Amino acid sequence: MPDSALFAVDWGTSSFRAYRLDADGAVIEQRQAPLGILKVANGDFAGTLQGEIGGWLAQSEAPVLMSGMIGSRQGWSEAPYAPCPAGLADLARHLHPVDVTPGRRGWIVPGLVHRGASGPPDVMRGEETQIMGVLGAIGAGRHLICLPGTHSKWVDLVDGRVAGFTTHMTGEVFGMLRQHSILGRLMDGDAVDLDGFDRGLDRARDGGGVLHHLFGVRTHGLFGEIAASALPGYLSGLLIGHELANAGDGKSEVLILGTAELARLYQHALARFGRPSRLLDPDAAHRGLFALLPHLPKD
Amino acid sequence: MPDSALFAVDWGTSSFRAYRLDADGAVIEQRQAPLGILKVANGDFAGTLQGEIGGWLAQSEAPVLMSGMIGSRQGWSEAPYAPCPAGLADLARHLHPVDVTPGRRGWIVPGLVHRGASGPPDVMRGEETQIMGVLGAIGAGRHLICLPGTHSKWVDLVDGRVAGFTTHMTGEVFGMLRQHSILGRLMDGDAVDLDGFDRGLDRARDGGGVLHHLFGVRTHGLFGEIAASALPGYLSGLLIGHELANAGDGKSEVLILGTAELARLYQHALARFGRPSRLLDPDAAHRGLFALLPHLPKD
Repeated sequence: MPDSALFAVDWGTSSFRAYRLDADGAVIEQRQAPLGILKVANGDFAGTLQGEIGGWLAQSEAPVLMSGMIGSRQGWSEAPYAPCPAGLADLARHLHPVDVTPGRRGWIVPGLVHRGASGPPDVMRGEETQIMGVLGAIGAGRHLICLPGTHSKWVDLVDGRVAGFTTHMTGEVFGMLRQHSILGRLMDGDAVDLDGFDRGLDRARDGGGVLHHLFGVRTHGLFGEIAASALPGYLSGLLIGHELANAGDGKSEVLILGTAELARLYQHALARFGRPSRLLDPDAAHRGLFALLPHLPKD
Repeated sequence: MPDSALFAVDWGTSSFRAYRLDADGAVIEQRQAPLGILKVANGDFAGTLQGEIGGWLAQSEAPVLMSGMIGSRQGWSEAPYAPCPAGLADLARHLHPVDVTPGRRGWIVPGLVHRGASGPPDVMRGEETQIMGVLGAIGAGRHLICLPGTHSKWVDLVDGRVAGFTTHMTGEVFGMLRQHSILGRLMDGDAVDLDGFDRGLDRARDGGGVLHHLFGVRTHGLFGEIAASALPGYLSGLLIGHELANAGDGKSEVLILGTAELARLYQHALARFGRPSRLLDPDAAHRGLFALLPHLPKD
């Protein structure tokens, strides 16, 4: 059995993923469980970690590095946000210690906070580590990265450091409208029909604003102009279209870092808006944690 | 007891309001009940009407005119939408008959449909009658009317006819985000704090789009920059601000037709955006129905 160099834990709201990595960062073993931080009873994160990877921990003194919502107020211990710009060395300086077993220190990667020229601050937690995981694949220079999802992130990356970013609540607003609004009642199923999606994308480029465009989901349904099965796609296209119309600089190549289906949907949307894009390998969290390894504080 | 000239019924989703009007349109008597169309069991609208104003109906052969969601697919009988432009005579031509008692015909005012140059159609049902009810107060010429609410309507009125309009789902989206999103969890109460409201209005005028601005509700709360009790106001300001930024022509005086508290909030918001506005008497539905009386079909 190859020696462990790092135990990398990607611990989010809904899932737990642990990776045993060798000295080259290759995955030797991995564990996955539906044990997101909201599923951990009585805040027993140490016990949960022990239950999942106690065997690994007993066999090696390799460091334990964790990222994601485990460092939030609702997680194991709140890791204060590090300010932008931030790269590997900056994140390492803000690593937040927790005792993974009595006397054994582990580290939680901090989230990032970005304060723009005006408006409220913006925050991420978990995405910063995924971004560090793709640095090797994209190299230096300036890049625009999109991490689509419940709260989509658009990241301005300059020479390996997150210079700034914006969050868009696209996924959450979609789910809410689908489930709780008058719009959802006319819909059949949840599949994203591509024709409906395209019509929504195109509509998003008209004037009138998204609060107005949303009502069109209802009227298109009422008048039978879009089938009930295509309305979820239309709504998705509207919202993603409005996100694209406002995010990033509107012209740079967009590097998409997301799970397969959603990433392809964004790529399709960007192409329709005439914007170049490229898909990145979404399995990036453990790579980002491994990239932090040389920067770990020395005891 | 003065003679009845019209029985005017404003029958919406959540409430039932009936007015007994004299030959001058003055209200002699009125009835109000929480018997919106969704509360009427087994679709027995005739029985409900009889229960509420059966006494009036027995004493007079005056016409019965109804408006609102009672003419929707979920109501008594679907009154097809009349096309814009539409004024009193146009609405009267599209009145939809129902038997209010066996052998006695009553009428439901149709909603309106507006088809713009592009995009889906827009619809209203009930608001067209309220608008007809304020014609006397505002006179001829061109007017911009805002009816704020769950689905706010912005109406282009030209010489007493609705030339076109747009719907904005501002109120519904606010309620959904307050109740079902991650944003609501940080909030305390539902009161609209005016300082928070103003900050939301101002934020809405920045770039970035509403899907991005919404996330600021969370971060302002997370960082303690806006108190939990002021966050509902901030969210409301954001959404109403985005509505105002997109609705109407952006410069005409806005005539606000809505219930007291919401109407004043919109007036405050418009003033902050430097736009003139004026409040109209919101008790307009029965006036609109009375204005239709001379146009009723002759049997």
